[in-house]
Amino acid sequence: MINKLVENIKRTGAPIVVGLDPMLSYIPEHIQKKAFQEFGETLEGAAEAIWQFNRKIVDQTFDLIPAVKPQIAMYEQFGIPGLAAFKKTVDYCKEKGLVVIGDIKRGDIGSTSAAYAAGHLGKVQVGSRTYAPFDEDFATVNPYLGSDGINPFLDVCREEKKGIFVLVKTSNPSSGEFQDQTTGGRPLYELVGEKVAAWGESYMGDDYSYVGAVVGATYPEMGKVLRKVMPKAYILVPGYGAQGGKGRDLVHFFNDDGLGAVVNSSRGIIAAYKQEKYASIGAENFADASRAAVEDMAADIKEALENR
Amino acid sequence: MINKLVENIKRTGAPIVVGLDPMLSYIPEHIQKKAFQEFGETLEGAAEAIWQFNRKIVDQTFDLIPAVKPQIAMYEQFGIPGLAAFKKTVDYCKEKGLVVIGDIKRGDIGSTSAAYAAGHLGKVQVGSRTYAPFDEDFATVNPYLGSDGINPFLDVCREEKKGIFVLVKTSNPSSGEFQDQTTGGRPLYELVGEKVAAWGESYMGDDYSYVGAVVGATYPEMGKVLRKVMPKAYILVPGYGAQGGKGRDLVHFFNDDGLGAVVNSSRGIIAAYKQEKYASIGAENFADASRAAVEDMAADIKEALENR
Repeated sequence: MINKLVENIKRTGAPIVVGLDPMLSYIPEHIQKKAFQEFGETLEGAAEAIWQFNRKIVDQTFDLIPAVKPQIAMYEQFGIPGLAAFKKTVDYCKEKGLVVIGDIKRGDIGSTSAAYAAGHLGKVQVGSRTYAPFDEDFATVNPYLGSDGINPFLDVCREEKKGIFVLVKTSNPSSGEFQDQTTGGRPLYELVGEKVAAWGESYMGDDYSYVGAVVGATYPEMGKVLRKVMPKAYILVPGYGAQGGKGRDLVHFFNDDGLGAVVNSSRGIIAAYKQEKYASIGAENFADASRAAVEDMAADIKEALENR
Repeated sequence: MINKLVENIKRTGAPIVVGLDPMLSYIPEHIQKKAFQEFGETLEGAAEAIWQFNRKIVDQTFDLIPAVKPQIAMYEQFGIPGLAAFKKTVDYCKEKGLVVIGDIKRGDIGSTSAAYAAGHLGKVQVGSRTYAPFDEDFATVNPYLGSDGINPFLDVCREEKKGIFVLVKTSNPSSGEFQDQTTGGRPLYELVGEKVAAWGESYMGDDYSYVGAVVGATYPEMGKVLRKVMPKAYILVPGYGAQGGKGRDLVHFFNDDGLGAVVNSSRGIIAAYKQEKYASIGAENFADASRAAVEDMAADIKEALENR
């Protein structure tokens, strides 16, 4: 799946992930209204609004982008119907040829991580039959529990040719509270990065490992260091746009071949129609605004990479 | 909710949590068979088997125990039907007067943690209506992202009188890889413990904070230290029984008042009928074996606390 991600990035020329993190407040009035007319102001209604919103954005952007990253929390908050909309979104994006990164940030002790890995990337056995319940291509994983929590994901990845992105240095303001603590002469995130490189060595695609890392766009200097610590890890970079990152902050996340990083934007793309820049497109045509935002983001990153 | 947990513990005299982590391999043949007859060998069939298994165990143990801790991964691995069985289990346990600790180990950047907090402990708004999608009483939370990832849970907890248990030192063998790293002269888990104490100070129940901690039974010496670092935090202690912890290892997790800790056992109770000790009870009466295992566990801990 890392090979497919790299191929998709080369084909589109855009190292971009669209974060499908639909808050209800991002969804235009007319979509919400129609969903509530059909299902009422219920969890099912919210889930329908989310699904219709996602579908239109995917339809208008899929040819420009290599991958999407649905954030499961935004679905899970609407309970079972919300999670059904997550699954529908995963399936639809895969049909469109997109690589789907489930932003699930799971991680637990061994037997429990094994259950998450089976449910999200692999298969479960029920009697004599097997099922692939969520079936994302990649999942994000939290490393706090150490190798025990990661290895079951690696086992499933090997079997299914799937991949993971391990949280190394997250994009949020307080990420340094624990991640930046100095230990053995270097920050904890570097130690986690070293582990990511080690976990990934045993499981390589053509040029990059199936084990990637999450490093926030908001910490470009740390990204520069981590790029060297984990030369074969693809870096998933959240925090572009709404969280403050810009194209020129991102150049050091990439290797010299222009590969090695894929940059996520969520709100900046899916709610682009709310920005002054795209307001003239109108809420009715929100997905066209998303398309314009993808084009602008791709151009921003391309320019930054060319001028580095 | 921390007050209710303490009350339930005092009433039952058993600082015990039953971990409802049903692997299909734990579920007796006759329960699986019946579920598959009704729903086929499908995800729905697996979910039905899990639900029937849980229900019988809860029916046979609820009067002896203060709380349950369903591990959501064991449900999530069976997709949407599995998660529906999780929700059914949460609701049923609450009807029986049990405190429900959702073992979800979520944690993300601020806006995303807010969505998890709303979905699991709080309410979501859909148009003019509000819903409480999963509605557990407590949730376990991963601290790797720092305060930003915790604060949205605290906000919801304050509003809903719910609580959280933050992962501090987990029970698994490799938990030391990152958690034990020395930083500023002490291990990282102590720093996390200090943060738990600080987060909890602002949100106190009668005697204990609404912010608790997870510390594995498998690390009793660390538990002793952490007990002092977080005097007002209830400690949720996994790792008893199947993972190797025993009653006498646990005494230092408790305060002198005999409170302050609640010990989880999962496999040791829900799959007790598979142990030699309870084998004569028979798979048909698996829930009676669970009851016997709860009684033995309560006696083991009581004896350890009396002889400390």
